[in-house]
Amino acid sequence: MSELRWNAQLREWVITATNRQDRTFLPGREACPLCPSRPGGVATEIDRPDFEVAAFENRFPSLHRQPPAPAVEGTLLTPVAPSAGACEVIVYTPDHDGSLGGATPVQIEKVIAVWAHRTLDIGSRPEIAYVFVFENRGEAIGVTLDHPHGQIYGYPHVPPLIAIELASGEAHAAGHGTCLWCDLLAQEERDGRRLVAAGRHWLVGVPFFARWPYEVHVTPRRHLGWLHQLDGDEVAELAVLLRDLLGAYDLLFGFPLPYVMAIHQRPTDGDAHRSYHLHLEFYPPNRAADRLKYLAGSEAGAGAVINDTLPEATAARLRELVAGQRAERGRGT
Amino acid sequence: MSELRWNAQLREWVITATNRQDRTFLPGREACPLCPSRPGGVATEIDRPDFEVAAFENRFPSLHRQPPAPAVEGTLLTPVAPSAGACEVIVYTPDHDGSLGGATPVQIEKVIAVWAHRTLDIGSRPEIAYVFVFENRGEAIGVTLDHPHGQIYGYPHVPPLIAIELASGEAHAAGHGTCLWCDLLAQEERDGRRLVAAGRHWLVGVPFFARWPYEVHVTPRRHLGWLHQLDGDEVAELAVLLRDLLGAYDLLFGFPLPYVMAIHQRPTDGDAHRSYHLHLEFYPPNRAADRLKYLAGSEAGAGAVINDTLPEATAARLRELVAGQRAERGRGT
Repeated sequence: MSELRWNAQLREWVITATNRQDRTFLPGREACPLCPSRPGGVATEIDRPDFEVAAFENRFPSLHRQPPAPAVEGTLLTPVAPSAGACEVIVYTPDHDGSLGGATPVQIEKVIAVWAHRTLDIGSRPEIAYVFVFENRGEAIGVTLDHPHGQIYGYPHVPPLIAIELASGEAHAAGHGTCLWCDLLAQEERDGRRLVAAGRHWLVGVPFFARWPYEVHVTPRRHLGWLHQLDGDEVAELAVLLRDLLGAYDLLFGFPLPYVMAIHQRPTDGDAHRSYHLHLEFYPPNRAADRLKYLAGSEAGAGAVINDTLPEATAARLRELVAGQRAERGRGT
Repeated sequence: MSELRWNAQLREWVITATNRQDRTFLPGREACPLCPSRPGGVATEIDRPDFEVAAFENRFPSLHRQPPAPAVEGTLLTPVAPSAGACEVIVYTPDHDGSLGGATPVQIEKVIAVWAHRTLDIGSRPEIAYVFVFENRGEAIGVTLDHPHGQIYGYPHVPPLIAIELASGEAHAAGHGTCLWCDLLAQEERDGRRLVAAGRHWLVGVPFFARWPYEVHVTPRRHLGWLHQLDGDEVAELAVLLRDLLGAYDLLFGFPLPYVMAIHQRPTDGDAHRSYHLHLEFYPPNRAADRLKYLAGSEAGAGAVINDTLPEATAARLRELVAGQRAERGRGT
């Protein structure tokens, strides 16, 4: 059973999706549904012996191309809507033990191309208002399949955090005549303390107002709204910077760092959001090697976020790790 | 180091609190700082051999009576403010192995009285705009001390989720001339499917739009804004209902269920929020005995909440467990 229920208290839609309770949970490597199908072996989700990047519909979706009838009737106070939308899986590589950050820049460019293509394609469906590309990595973040993959959701509405960012961008543009993110980029580059890496086309840094330990935003210098607007040079540099950042993450505590990656593009329901600026956000939950940040009382109950780390300190550490990897690569290792 | 940093993207304050990184982490029972001090033994946070309910300032606060100077300077784009506020600990019982739900109703009434008193007292400080009473229970929710206790934060601003609820209540009152929560109560009682327990003064139920598995709201029938407005009968019934609900939680999967308890009162900065209706919210993270709900990509990155459980089903199960305990008690066991 699955439907959208209107939360009258927070004025947002909640997705009820009880069909997901029985979803595949950390199967062993031999039962991995995201590996290529082996000749003579069990067929996986990917019915071929090899692939570069694979995208397909999630078998345990929260949002549906053909949504079922809602389990309950709505009222004026608490409306109900069908759970129309899209849930896709993007498998980054056939290598079960690989990772996005461990892939070659050429392979990461292919993943970026798939993100851009799926955004356009899913966003063209009339019932979709917003396409959200993301990755949940690591068991600490609740991942149920360990083969490297990300996901794409197509929502029938603009989700709450995106709606807030759109409003912030519009208010800033109305008040200053400039883009909020362009202004933040200029401030961060001038200040320098929170930069992790500065490219010709992208800035990588811990935001001044980070909510998560080791949170990083990756923002293009050019004011654009969607991945498909990136040119070849911008895609190539993004691939290298993602490899560098995710490599630094895995060096940070000496293990594959769990994270949520959230790609924030403009809504796909029209051209009305020109003040919004594409960016990628990464939220690792680890505040130390053996300590996680939890969204507990203050966050879950009041929405007041506490960050136990100092953005200037986490940025300095990540900057050092990115520079160290580059020096290693420069020496041909 | 600790300060408030303005998140220009989400238009909310983030609390930076790096002093908390070294906070006490799951000390053994013999080193528990929330037990009474034993004669001849090490002094704990509570310098006496016994107590009923104890309240004192948190040794590792996020918000401070005398906030330190911010670690960074703010800008017009990203302001900084001192982390002024209050962080208190409320120890529910001297019994290290007890729990709020395991206490007698008489003891729970004492805890409620302390919540109400501390709200008034902290709220009377001019720098405090909102007092938030909450409990984080269980290691799954990130608790670092296992002695039964809750917390109180006094924020210098109204935190984001409360601000949204205030706005929802005001919009509903403006549009309908009635209280949003009074109307929700009437709808839920008429419908009945999501009720867990109905008292003379309180309704306990899974909200129609639950975001968390087994989420429960406890709402007074009378339209009031703060705990201190409850009369003796209302406090007595609340104590019994909390015992029943938390007892059902612990029976649900056969272990002490982790949860966040959030008490939503009106702001303490004046009498301007008459449309807001006091209520207690409980969010257990368990979607099954061995499965947690994570706030991953869709929630952390887009703010779109997915609930893998059906409110009508979780309410039926909790209702059954509450009724079962009452039958047991009725038989004098």
